[in-house]
Amino acid sequence: MKLGVDLLEDFARGAAFLGTGGGGDPYIGRLAAQYAIEEFGAPELVALEDLDDDTAVYTAAYIGAPTIFLEKLICGADLDLAVEKLEELTGKPAGAIISAEIGGVNSIVPLAVAARRGLPIVDGDGMGRAFPEVQMVTFNVYGVPASPAVIVNEHLEYCVVHAHNAKSAEDKLRAIAIEMGLGAGLSCFPMSGRQAKDTAVGKTLSLAIGAGQAIAEGRRAGEPIDALLAYLRTTPYYNQCHVLFDGKIVDLLREVKGGWNVGTCVMEPLESGGGTMEILFRNENLIARLDGETKAIVPDLIAILDRESGEPITTEGVRYGQRVKVVGVSAAPIMRTPEALAVFGPRMFGFDEDFTPIEDLIG
Amino acid sequence: MKLGVDLLEDFARGAAFLGTGGGGDPYIGRLAAQYAIEEFGAPELVALEDLDDDTAVYTAAYIGAPTIFLEKLICGADLDLAVEKLEELTGKPAGAIISAEIGGVNSIVPLAVAARRGLPIVDGDGMGRAFPEVQMVTFNVYGVPASPAVIVNEHLEYCVVHAHNAKSAEDKLRAIAIEMGLGAGLSCFPMSGRQAKDTAVGKTLSLAIGAGQAIAEGRRAGEPIDALLAYLRTTPYYNQCHVLFDGKIVDLLREVKGGWNVGTCVMEPLESGGGTMEILFRNENLIARLDGETKAIVPDLIAILDRESGEPITTEGVRYGQRVKVVGVSAAPIMRTPEALAVFGPRMFGFDEDFTPIEDLIG
Repeated sequence: MKLGVDLLEDFARGAAFLGTGGGGDPYIGRLAAQYAIEEFGAPELVALEDLDDDTAVYTAAYIGAPTIFLEKLICGADLDLAVEKLEELTGKPAGAIISAEIGGVNSIVPLAVAARRGLPIVDGDGMGRAFPEVQMVTFNVYGVPASPAVIVNEHLEYCVVHAHNAKSAEDKLRAIAIEMGLGAGLSCFPMSGRQAKDTAVGKTLSLAIGAGQAIAEGRRAGEPIDALLAYLRTTPYYNQCHVLFDGKIVDLLREVKGGWNVGTCVMEPLESGGGTMEILFRNENLIARLDGETKAIVPDLIAILDRESGEPITTEGVRYGQRVKVVGVSAAPIMRTPEALAVFGPRMFGFDEDFTPIEDLIG
Repeated sequence: MKLGVDLLEDFARGAAFLGTGGGGDPYIGRLAAQYAIEEFGAPELVALEDLDDDTAVYTAAYIGAPTIFLEKLICGADLDLAVEKLEELTGKPAGAIISAEIGGVNSIVPLAVAARRGLPIVDGDGMGRAFPEVQMVTFNVYGVPASPAVIVNEHLEYCVVHAHNAKSAEDKLRAIAIEMGLGAGLSCFPMSGRQAKDTAVGKTLSLAIGAGQAIAEGRRAGEPIDALLAYLRTTPYYNQCHVLFDGKIVDLLREVKGGWNVGTCVMEPLESGGGTMEILFRNENLIARLDGETKAIVPDLIAILDRESGEPITTEGVRYGQRVKVVGVSAAPIMRTPEALAVFGPRMFGFDEDFTPIEDLIG
């Protein structure tokens, strides 16, 4: 299957939903992918199981604060150079491109890289959602080294990071990304097809397209969020899904701190009575609490959607007064193992509580 | 001539003087060099004119705030790895080591690297003094690219910086050095023997040894600073030299900011009457003003010496109440050209005045 321009709008919408508020507005990434596909042709979407074990698979992603992506346009040549330099360092030409995360900009720009290089794009990623830090990927959890990692700025200057572990690589890459103006191209976790099969969250590009299509079709029938939930219940990972809240945004604190968008979004019901929902985010939505009681928590997915159109709203897009529904969704099983929770469970984000699956939180 | 352990004490003292307050306490570097020389033998001190044009010459230096060097000991393996990785990147094994600056720690640790590798050390450096930023070297002024630059932490993790110019390399290296805890090993400005001849400030290791010996000999005669000045007047660059002030330190502001030691040191005469001297520094002493009138300014050298022993005092070593003499010294001619002043003249440090040679400031 080719991932062509006709699928981009649904893909971007679905990826914005799976991005759980993070990864930046996919509109910008969609433009970049559209131009690349129109000029170079659509990349083949290749299933993990169809990858050769020996093929070299590289990630391509932007690192920074999504708020900045709105101000500083993406050039593409930075990502291409990151992948090229990683090829030079490993001595292995890329056989496929894989997304680090299936959220916002970073789910879609790899399509542009794949299109420009005539390479297939893997139907899978390292999170099945979006996360704010480099080490927060299944590639790292299950043993693929992050280094060497190549980070490139819009002037095509680059740095190569060789760190002993993925968290240390994150620390160095973050310092460089801040110096580079908080929007830099990154290629890291160079891996074999075998490693991709063993560590990636599979089928997530197909699932993003499916989610985006469900919202679009539901919108025509007037019930986009019902349609989305009906679709998710048919999927292998995202089948535990619930509307956690229906109301409007009454308070919002958001700032760029330490290289991330961090903040809190508070919601109340449209009519008086009922509880107050609070969502804490760091690039992505991390925890949803109703009157102080946890209803969904990272790594499970928490998405804020426009209550009429079902359009996903990113953490830099939420505004006072928006009428929204909050949807909680189960993460993929390989995202919920003890090893995975040690890398991106609640305590890794500073919460003093353990992960509880959404199916246990919602009676 | 071998640069053996017997010369280290004088060399360190002279280098501390030429370091104009910066480059860190050379005592730490001296220990590192002493151990390396005792274990591996003394490196040959090779004159610039005796370098083969084709030999590969590499710098080895610590980047960070000298205050930190007091807290975080130097390991040496970081610098060795920086040089090795630079050799891998250029494909040219090192034929000699050159100091980036002839001030404090960074004038002496290259001896340890040279000793451990059995390589000669060049009698010359990139400043004929010390400076706080990577681009502030004659190598850069006269056309040697800073990149690739390799920066290594004490865990032997490393980053390679490829920047379009030396100031941009500095920006990236500084961000990484801060992440690495403000004390990291660095090798950059990979150059040929020909480039070293064309761009380095020559004879500065010999001159540092001479200055250190003059202070030591003068101390035995009770007049170390007079002896130092008498020696400097015989040298090719440092022959314009004056005691700018004689008094005590009455006020001191010093902080670690942006990765440097920055501050102001105020002095008054020992007896009432006479003017007040103010010295502004950023790692190194930059300007000396007597009652607001400039008496010496960067890139000319400004050193604060203990008024009895003639021992140079670094910017992290100055203390309230110290009795000191301030000595101003002419920089090497290749440090005073318009191209050089565009890189490390007064305006590059934020001063709103042009460079005036010390011989024109002192009537």
